[in-house]
Amino acid sequence: MTEFDQMCPYFHKAMTILGKKWTGQILRSFIEGSRRFTDISTYVHGISDRLLSQRLQELEGEDIILRQVYSSRPVIVEYSLTDKGQALRQVVEAVQRWADRWIDDPVVATNRA
Amino acid sequence: MTEFDQMCPYFHKAMTILGKKWTGQILRSFIEGSRRFTDISTYVHGISDRLLSQRLQELEGEDIILRQVYSSRPVIVEYSLTDKGQALRQVVEAVQRWADRWIDDPVVATNRA
Repeated sequence: MTEFDQMCPYFHKAMTILGKKWTGQILRSFIEGSRRFTDISTYVHGISDRLLSQRLQELEGEDIILRQVYSSRPVIVEYSLTDKGQALRQVVEAVQRWADRWIDDPVVATNRA
Repeated sequence: MTEFDQMCPYFHKAMTILGKKWTGQILRSFIEGSRRFTDISTYVHGISDRLLSQRLQELEGEDIILRQVYSSRPVIVEYSLTDKGQALRQVVEAVQRWADRWIDDPVVATNRA
């Protein structure tokens, strides 16, 4: 018996969070710091505003990102990683390393969704 | 400018492969070696046979897993990781480390899909 011989409920829960369309790309956008909604939308490129809002709400609900509202005019809303979210940097970097080594042809249809 | 300041098409392509429902859990099932369809189905727990077939075909199409048919009676079909798939162990382990540290309550509804 090893750690990987059977499913781990913690891993399973993590993948239900991380294994959603666009979530990896959204998380990558935060690695260097806080972002506004339009920054993330531009960065991720191809996601609809509606789905991006939904994903941000899900990540906020999981304590992975923090939504901060500044009462300026116009109001500024910024999203950033919590400590739990910052810890995902190792996952993003692991995916990046794998992609750099193994993805030959990065061209992929980016259907809006 | 750092590596993460803009989206990387290789990362994006990697996430279109890995960021699908159940794919992380399926990949985890192969870490310790080859598996038959029913092994994977039991391991992942909650995925429909139809969706599992689809995911396995996608991973085979991406050269991440290898499907081998042994002409015994009954015919045995085994799936295992290719070198490209074995390299995903670092991603699975990174998710596991994050999950072990940060997931408090692993209880999650496992709807069949």
